[in-house]
Amino acid sequence: MEDCIFCKIVKGDLPCFKVYEDEKVLAFEDINPVSQGHTLIIPKRHAENLWEVPEDDLAAIHAASKRVIAAMRKALDPVGVALLQLNGRGVNQVVMHYHLHLMPRSRDEPPLPVTSWELKEGDMDSIREVSKRIAAAIAE
Amino acid sequence: MEDCIFCKIVKGDLPCFKVYEDEKVLAFEDINPVSQGHTLIIPKRHAENLWEVPEDDLAAIHAASKRVIAAMRKALDPVGVALLQLNGRGVNQVVMHYHLHLMPRSRDEPPLPVTSWELKEGDMDSIREVSKRIAAAIAE
Repeated sequence: MEDCIFCKIVKGDLPCFKVYEDEKVLAFEDINPVSQGHTLIIPKRHAENLWEVPEDDLAAIHAASKRVIAAMRKALDPVGVALLQLNGRGVNQVVMHYHLHLMPRSRDEPPLPVTSWELKEGDMDSIREVSKRIAAAIAE
Repeated sequence: MEDCIFCKIVKGDLPCFKVYEDEKVLAFEDINPVSQGHTLIIPKRHAENLWEVPEDDLAAIHAASKRVIAAMRKALDPVGVALLQLNGRGVNQVVMHYHLHLMPRSRDEPPLPVTSWELKEGDMDSIREVSKRIAAAIAE
């Protein structure tokens, strides 16, 4: 995509701090990092989000995530690593090229801003009802 | 794992609101939902986190995520869907069996609590340095 900043990085028209690359994916540092080592993995072929990305690219992205997270553990010894992947402007996707965030948290860093929420017990009837609607849509 | 709540769900010893199942994975509703339709996808074989889960199970989980998110779009017409996967108690992993959260946000729901953070420009020298450490660990 001509105007896509991540496609420009893939083509080499914009620089990045690369950590990993293979035939299908590219991994590089987020330049507005939430934590030290905050890394993005993207498919080289443009796809906007999870519903657009082909299954083979998706498998390659997640195979790469295992390599990158293993390297993060060796290089940074984090207390944990959060993976986040946003689909749609309504959940704050900003760059409209699929990207998987890997956010390691080092020992001396504060809690990540994306890993906690208030645990509220749901209404069981509503949950049952929505589970049936999703299950029915899968079966269609 | 004997004491693992998700292994008990897989075995049928505990109930769940199932939305999808295949040979390798199970998807069911979170009973403390962040939003309507908050769903978890887990591998049936116990693995604590991303570094333990075998690559074939990981590919199956993410192939299932495409089916579940497609069904969510049909059933709920969300403004977006966030995927979150936590590895380690230091990033608030609570159940120590790998699980991928799919959190759809419906039109009438408030912003999800896990999709925003303050964008602060990083220090480019630090980012370059950490990218080299991670890249070196991958190459090892």
